[in-house]
Amino acid sequence: MKHTNYTMLCDYYELTMANGYFLAEKKDEIAYFDVFFRNIPDGGGYAIATGLEQVIDYIKNLSFTEEDIEYLRSKNTFDERFLEYLSTFRFTGDIYAIEEGTPIFPGEPIMIVKAPAIEAQFIETFILLTLNHQSLIATKANRIVRAAQGRPVAEFGSRRAQGPEAAILGARAAYIGGCSATACTMSDRDYHIPATGTMAHSWVQMFDDEYTAFETYCKLYPDNATLLVDTYDTISSGIPNAIKAFKNVLIPQGKTSFGIRLDSGDISYLTKKARKMLNEAGLENCKIVISNSLDEHIIRDIIHQGAEVDSFGVGERLITAKSEPVFGGVYKLVAVEKDGEVIPKIKISENPGKITTPHFKKLYRIFDKETGKAMADLLTVYDEVIDPTAPLSIFDPINTWKTKTFTDYTLKELLVPIFKDGECVYQSPDIDSIRESCLNQTNLLWDEVKRFENPHRYYVDLSQKLWDIKHNLLKRS
Amino acid sequence: MKHTNYTMLCDYYELTMANGYFLAEKKDEIAYFDVFFRNIPDGGGYAIATGLEQVIDYIKNLSFTEEDIEYLRSKNTFDERFLEYLSTFRFTGDIYAIEEGTPIFPGEPIMIVKAPAIEAQFIETFILLTLNHQSLIATKANRIVRAAQGRPVAEFGSRRAQGPEAAILGARAAYIGGCSATACTMSDRDYHIPATGTMAHSWVQMFDDEYTAFETYCKLYPDNATLLVDTYDTISSGIPNAIKAFKNVLIPQGKTSFGIRLDSGDISYLTKKARKMLNEAGLENCKIVISNSLDEHIIRDIIHQGAEVDSFGVGERLITAKSEPVFGGVYKLVAVEKDGEVIPKIKISENPGKITTPHFKKLYRIFDKETGKAMADLLTVYDEVIDPTAPLSIFDPINTWKTKTFTDYTLKELLVPIFKDGECVYQSPDIDSIRESCLNQTNLLWDEVKRFENPHRYYVDLSQKLWDIKHNLLKRS
Repeated sequence: MKHTNYTMLCDYYELTMANGYFLAEKKDEIAYFDVFFRNIPDGGGYAIATGLEQVIDYIKNLSFTEEDIEYLRSKNTFDERFLEYLSTFRFTGDIYAIEEGTPIFPGEPIMIVKAPAIEAQFIETFILLTLNHQSLIATKANRIVRAAQGRPVAEFGSRRAQGPEAAILGARAAYIGGCSATACTMSDRDYHIPATGTMAHSWVQMFDDEYTAFETYCKLYPDNATLLVDTYDTISSGIPNAIKAFKNVLIPQGKTSFGIRLDSGDISYLTKKARKMLNEAGLENCKIVISNSLDEHIIRDIIHQGAEVDSFGVGERLITAKSEPVFGGVYKLVAVEKDGEVIPKIKISENPGKITTPHFKKLYRIFDKETGKAMADLLTVYDEVIDPTAPLSIFDPINTWKTKTFTDYTLKELLVPIFKDGECVYQSPDIDSIRESCLNQTNLLWDEVKRFENPHRYYVDLSQKLWDIKHNLLKRS
Repeated sequence: MKHTNYTMLCDYYELTMANGYFLAEKKDEIAYFDVFFRNIPDGGGYAIATGLEQVIDYIKNLSFTEEDIEYLRSKNTFDERFLEYLSTFRFTGDIYAIEEGTPIFPGEPIMIVKAPAIEAQFIETFILLTLNHQSLIATKANRIVRAAQGRPVAEFGSRRAQGPEAAILGARAAYIGGCSATACTMSDRDYHIPATGTMAHSWVQMFDDEYTAFETYCKLYPDNATLLVDTYDTISSGIPNAIKAFKNVLIPQGKTSFGIRLDSGDISYLTKKARKMLNEAGLENCKIVISNSLDEHIIRDIIHQGAEVDSFGVGERLITAKSEPVFGGVYKLVAVEKDGEVIPKIKISENPGKITTPHFKKLYRIFDKETGKAMADLLTVYDEVIDPTAPLSIFDPINTWKTKTFTDYTLKELLVPIFKDGECVYQSPDIDSIRESCLNQTNLLWDEVKRFENPHRYYVDLSQKLWDIKHNLLKRS
């Protein structure tokens, strides 16, 4: 596991503001920031929270080296006392977060930072870029895996990733979102995402002929040979040579686990044709893998057309979330402390969608006791208490006449303590547990929320108390 | 400067193939691979080659640690002799590449790797992901900077980048493409990309009122105060408070370098209104910076509408190249050596656009002697000689009757030696020289190639000899 010190991966204004808070004697004022997002990529019904483990690593490693201080000194912008302060800088605050793999919705905090202003402000960029990136890829992977209807999807996109860690951490996020494997070896070594692979066209080209390339590969990897059949001509050469190699090398050894991969051409047509040729050769158990610029729409469409596919390799459109490559998480001040009292703060905007929900909050997910399904999320002020034995009424924060009352429900608090007074109080589950949790939790969403087109909008409502505070602040502004 | 060992950032199939080449006694056969791309993002007329320096770092650091070998052994897939071989693995081949900051075009090699097959195949993923990512961002930055027509553009996108290095290296690529600065501090520390910044909305919210926030900031940073004026209401509060702070704090000190930043609302309207208010207050030199979901189209449009903008901060649409977040560079075998002879190899495809140009090649850029403008690029076989004093005729490789003859021209060979027998023989220029080279070289392109919509297709032609070899291979297949 890598533990790079990313302290300096901050926006420069975080340092100028920090210097300012220090000199204005505001550095120890307690501030509360929410991380939340406004829109679900691709018009989907939910996103998947991912990236917390890397945020934890970052916070644990947060410290300025002598080299960093020297670099900052060279900018002739920062006060010497501030630089002195940075030399022993550590995070001393509290962090709450939604656990990785959890479905999340617009407008709710996926992380809350409570810390002295100077610290809380400073960690903004890294937190956002990490949660934004990994939640983006996990959400996209979850869509693609859903489209594949149970067929395994492997992440194959490293070569088109936006930099080294977009490949490595992108593979991690894709796995959490539901992918079954990655092509990225380093992600396996460092994050235990199972690495897999077949062969490139160059393997076939390096041999005098296609058959020899296939035969050699089957001899080398008799337990797991997937032959790439489209280097020359798929139907007239690739598949017949693959069949010949399987029959000459693998069948006599009693091997049963092998396959072919198609990386070009008309997938619906070619896979049906391939299936027929393989079956006629008695190779019913030969798997067909496809991998040509796939995404959830193409996968859904070719399955709809009856393509004979056993598994998918998905590259650039997954690893960059090509159709919508930005997850718009933001980091907004929601409260400050004055003499021990929490004072809610709001950010006004001419665009109502950009107005923040103020205050230090709690977030509950409401489940129907009978079906176990997630019904709505509820935001309350931090000190509110809900009696889970009493009926619970919620209302739409925009169209307030729309109300809903739950009588037979369970509540789950989604924001769990991660850091307390600068100490990490949370242990990330292993990667397979996170992935399984994601699967289990998405299973608790109604199908209507999981639609690709025009999904049902999941309710994220405010308690009456929180709604009143927000609207009083709006009126006063 | 970071020198992370990214040896294990490879597709897993590169290792299974490497093991295969090793066991099939093919590991020392010399292979030639081209890196090239097929389409320019956003329908542009050219791309910008970027990322070479990081590829050089990678190749220099290429080696398997004991931990890596142990990890690979645990996969029960690799031969012990192969693992033994990996423990002393180094790159021993040759690499040629187009220098960073150079305009590049589809179909031409931007890098050539000549090495023992096992090595050449192994480095595919890292080379592609690095050149793809950085060329993508540099190309996008170049478009955005072009749209800004001389106004500085700062890269502000770290928080939406796809992982830590997408922020850091993306800022580097954006600078090479023409940006003037970045918000990413780590990119300044490690790559000398000038870091800049203003303030966040939270700075304003942390004070009891907007004026106090502004006044405090001006006192702290009298030489370089840019005040964010849209936290509450831009026209009725933000700009008047900024004017008051400038007049109370900066003007009495004789300061002249300050500005306001607008991050929301109707930019055309607000900047004109702001300019008027500032001028009426006698603050003609106050700069106006804008930063709200910008890209080349929005920038061009608001300039067209007469917006009063002095500089731009561009975030997510630059750092992810949002409109087209994939640069499709590929890595294809083009030749092998047999008994010292270079044997061209071709990859056939049903899609003519995916057929490769075979052979070990040279790449020339042809400049008009009189105007200095770049006229076309020419690919030749590696051993061809061009007499630069004789007229040079080229022809379109698809529509072969379209010919062009140059009489008064100069030639520049674009692929320069980077590694020779595993030794680095190239020193990357400093970052400012690369950026300047990019500016100078794009200035040598005709305006027709630089259009945003339907640009002129720049010619990338093949010599007669190379064309004949390609077409003979196609006929034989």
